Amino acid sequence: MTMTTHSPLLYLEDLRVGDRFTSPQHAMDEAQIKAFATQFDPQPFHLDDTAARATLFGGLAASGWHTAAVTMRLLVTGGLPIAGGIVGAGGELSWPQPTRPVDVLHVVSEIITIVPSRSRPDRGMVTVRSETRNQHDEVLQVSVVRVVVPCRPGTAQ
Amino acid sequence: MTMTTHSPLLYLEDLRVGDRFTSPQHAMDEAQIKAFATQFDPQPFHLDDTAARATLFGGLAASGWHTAAVTMRLLVTGGLPIAGGIVGAGGELSWPQPTRPVDVLHVVSEIITIVPSRSRPDRGMVTVRSETRNQHDEVLQVSVVRVVVPCRPGTAQ
Repeated sequence: MTMTTHSPLLYLEDLRVGDRFTSPQHAMDEAQIKAFATQFDPQPFHLDDTAARATLFGGLAASGWHTAAVTMRLLVTGGLPIAGGIVGAGGELSWPQPTRPVDVLHVVSEIITIVPSRSRPDRGMVTVRSETRNQHDEVLQVSVVRVVVPCRPGTAQ
Repeated sequence: MTMTTHSPLLYLEDLRVGDRFTSPQHAMDEAQIKAFATQFDPQPFHLDDTAARATLFGGLAASGWHTAAVTMRLLVTGGLPIAGGIVGAGGELSWPQPTRPVDVLHVVSEIITIVPSRSRPDRGMVTVRSETRNQHDEVLQVSVVRVVVPCRPGTAQ
């Protein structure tokens, strides 16, 4: 099943392993990259194109944490339409290649595991693997995050 | 060895497993939490204290990605004084408890593994475990990140 944006919110019973979701898009640019870096990751390769050319990035690149934050925005604003909001308990991240000022990002997510809670019958833990891709479908970030998902009200026993 | 802020930058040869570093502090507040959430994680429990009380957070809480971003700022601005900047290849994150508007954060990091590169004798991969703690030394985030660290210039063979 592939869901698009503006789907109705999904509860634990609505999810199946292998379900995939595609987010809206977000266009990066130099101003956003530098603004995030100034506030949270003030290193030359995230702040200045000329300085960045002399580093292993070879040019201005977004902070990985900026890519992660934009990914979250895309998941929250249609990319992962689950009920109760997206509350992560933790997860893993990798950045196979840098996010560049010209990149237009979208996120493709897949449900990997679904584990109903033993102690709390009104919820479960769902593992979601998300690839953040640019306009060439190159993968810039892979995240595997565990998310708490509520059961549909009135159905939990 | 415990390093404080404004240490000279450290190269791969300067690091030992078990070395610990303590960052400067960063005071959170409601305005920062809401500004980050508005931009990157627009969910009620990160945007509005009243709405947040009815959720599992029980009150306004920072986005986990905001805690991660502030952690990066603290590492970059003195918390992990390694040469060449902090370039993460990926890692793991968990958030044992939410970051609140009153929290004053600092980061305590420890070197877990040091692996010289086989193919590139001028660098190595270092695993750093960082705890982001509040003013009560409660752990709000644990990250384990792999970082590329250069050898001291002129010493690599």
